[in-house]
Amino acid sequence: MTRIVDVEVHDVRFPTAATGDGSDAINRGDYSATYVELTTDGGPTGAGFTFTNGRGNEITCAAVRALAHHVRGRAVAEIAAEPVAFWRSLTADVQLRWLGPEKGVIHMATGALVNAVWDLRAKLAGKPMWRFLAEAPTEDLVASVDFHHITDALTPDDAAAILDKGRDGLAERLAALDRDGFPSYTTSVGWLGYPDDKVRALTRAAYAEGWRAVKMKVGGPLDDDLRRARIIRAEIGPDALLMMDANQVWDVDEAITAMSALIEVDPYWIEEPTHADDVLGHARIARAVAELSEGRCRVATGEVAANRVIFKQLLQAEAIGVMQIDACRVGGVNEVLAELLMAAKFGVPVCPHAGGVGLCEYVQHLAIFDHLRVGTGLDGRMVEYVDHLHEHFVDPVRTRQGRYLLPTAPGYSATMRPESIAHFRFPDGPAWR
Amino acid sequence: MTRIVDVEVHDVRFPTAATGDGSDAINRGDYSATYVELTTDGGPTGAGFTFTNGRGNEITCAAVRALAHHVRGRAVAEIAAEPVAFWRSLTADVQLRWLGPEKGVIHMATGALVNAVWDLRAKLAGKPMWRFLAEAPTEDLVASVDFHHITDALTPDDAAAILDKGRDGLAERLAALDRDGFPSYTTSVGWLGYPDDKVRALTRAAYAEGWRAVKMKVGGPLDDDLRRARIIRAEIGPDALLMMDANQVWDVDEAITAMSALIEVDPYWIEEPTHADDVLGHARIARAVAELSEGRCRVATGEVAANRVIFKQLLQAEAIGVMQIDACRVGGVNEVLAELLMAAKFGVPVCPHAGGVGLCEYVQHLAIFDHLRVGTGLDGRMVEYVDHLHEHFVDPVRTRQGRYLLPTAPGYSATMRPESIAHFRFPDGPAWR
Repeated sequence: MTRIVDVEVHDVRFPTAATGDGSDAINRGDYSATYVELTTDGGPTGAGFTFTNGRGNEITCAAVRALAHHVRGRAVAEIAAEPVAFWRSLTADVQLRWLGPEKGVIHMATGALVNAVWDLRAKLAGKPMWRFLAEAPTEDLVASVDFHHITDALTPDDAAAILDKGRDGLAERLAALDRDGFPSYTTSVGWLGYPDDKVRALTRAAYAEGWRAVKMKVGGPLDDDLRRARIIRAEIGPDALLMMDANQVWDVDEAITAMSALIEVDPYWIEEPTHADDVLGHARIARAVAELSEGRCRVATGEVAANRVIFKQLLQAEAIGVMQIDACRVGGVNEVLAELLMAAKFGVPVCPHAGGVGLCEYVQHLAIFDHLRVGTGLDGRMVEYVDHLHEHFVDPVRTRQGRYLLPTAPGYSATMRPESIAHFRFPDGPAWR
Repeated sequence: MTRIVDVEVHDVRFPTAATGDGSDAINRGDYSATYVELTTDGGPTGAGFTFTNGRGNEITCAAVRALAHHVRGRAVAEIAAEPVAFWRSLTADVQLRWLGPEKGVIHMATGALVNAVWDLRAKLAGKPMWRFLAEAPTEDLVASVDFHHITDALTPDDAAAILDKGRDGLAERLAALDRDGFPSYTTSVGWLGYPDDKVRALTRAAYAEGWRAVKMKVGGPLDDDLRRARIIRAEIGPDALLMMDANQVWDVDEAITAMSALIEVDPYWIEEPTHADDVLGHARIARAVAELSEGRCRVATGEVAANRVIFKQLLQAEAIGVMQIDACRVGGVNEVLAELLMAAKFGVPVCPHAGGVGLCEYVQHLAIFDHLRVGTGLDGRMVEYVDHLHEHFVDPVRTRQGRYLLPTAPGYSATMRPESIAHFRFPDGPAWR
């Protein structure tokens, strides 16, 4: 009976701000991780993290330390037997809840800890996370979801029905994934920090490598956005998908105005057109872009959606045509399960957010599980791919011609290489001294 | 030309958890403050804080330290000349924004710092905050609001029109306030931790003291809630106002079921009936309680509303009949201005959240300013009052027969007594050793 004996947290930061990688309308940072290790009284170490943008990573580290007493000393089997009770010990702590609730720093820290526990559970089971979840009994998965505040959109019975139905054809879907990999798209061609020539060259190279879906950043001067969009559309031709991401920079009416011009290049989605909390605003924009494009363009969001209650409303208000879950902004696997199940119930495909540090490593498991057992269809499903910082992980993502290959190592692919932690630890690692 | 030379932050905690004061359906804590002092190169010290519930106060302190470089070294006159640029230096920091955006720990820390700057500005002007704001030129107040992401509900022109109109009758309203004080209500009678006899005795005493509006906590077993509600209604008679506060414990349909029973005692509002982020849920509950009560009962919320974008939607969706602003969960005075102006535009009265540590001290200024210059009418306006921890402030609130008396000292009444800081500093103060 494995017990978690200690919780260690490392402030790991990669100096990416200087290169312009990852720059968009609102963020420019040093991709960082609040990295958690759960040491046990024997057997594997659980690894989890939340992603941050550099400054302030010490704040999420402090939040992990404030929550760690809910994890330290716990037997893994006890947690697995009462997963929602464990989850609520973190999210409904009578003193810490005030700092959220269920949002921002305290919730991101919860995500790091909860994911580390899931990584440990999958490692103990000897399975990659996607398989650990896909092969779990329906009742275990349902028992892992906190339905508090979402029963008006998803009940335990709804969830069980979706997961039971998800067993149909699972073996066939798995065989196809094993052969073909999981579809993805690339965001590496169109960061705002890149000049036109670099955008053109990167797009051409990505197309040659097999990518048929690419995403660009928008939200700068509209003329610039449109010029870069035309370059990309010209390179990828009329059939490949071009997505746009405004990173929340617009007001609601500004978003509609901008999309009235950008619709010319046939965008597949507009991501984060306005403030992440603005459910009603996203709904208005969704109606407008659908009308502008005769239904071809939709709104996508989620990387900054604080929790399952925001996702619930985005679905209820028909504000999104694509749900972009994040693996570690919300409270880890338990809350992601709720989000995947709600998306399935509302018939909205899930295209997880990735990039940053280790987000591709995390979300590949979630997307594969979603396809195998929850959302099932592949139509419109793809995982973001950014070719940054994978070398720091023990079990990095592997792609082939724009598709993710199935991870095979036990766990959640979240384990960072010890030498990377040592080198990039802030502020005392050699990279920062 | 006064310059801010340093930012000091103190982790101050009062051991209130043991007594049951402040206990509700979801929170039970040691009322605490992340207390900020801005020392200057001459003249007064600026004081501000954000309220927390005990554990985790060190996290908001860490967040203040992460933001402090945006404040340290700044001339007060420079900040006053470009207030939104200053505010955005905190809320739109390209690395720290990821930790919110504009919510939770990082936004609460922003509130503490921003309020400390406003306290300093009012002290330099020699005016209590309410007067500093009420006498400000319209253009200065409009220039203090960040309209980003709210222009679909409130434009700068809307704001200017409201503030100009607010000059009409201001002198008469001020004379009446000076004579009568500002209406308030008490939450001290009905905490969940209190037994029936204590609730009865406290309600009787409050009524005798002149209170004609009292609030009780609900969200425990429905039978208990109803029994306590009947006790309170019997004590205050049919004409006084009885408010209820569920502190987010219910799901949407549970809230409607519970209110179907509790409507018997003629509640004036139901506060936080469900998750603070659930705009659509609040709207459904608002429609239901209005129908159950033939329009007598409404939904109130706001103490945990993360920012102006959430408040905007609560108003757009007609989800609230009372807006409860908090002085320091959002980004300080600048963002509260946006909220007061939106409430005025949508015709919803503002009844600020108070209690905790120093919240009464803060919000009295905001409510008075709102009445004098923004919302103007007194109909339905009152400030929460809780008789806790005022003794730790240099300029504590003063009440008379259930009404707040006008503060007279310069500043925002946020300055804590040095001996209180020393005694309750965590973890090294004598109260915690």
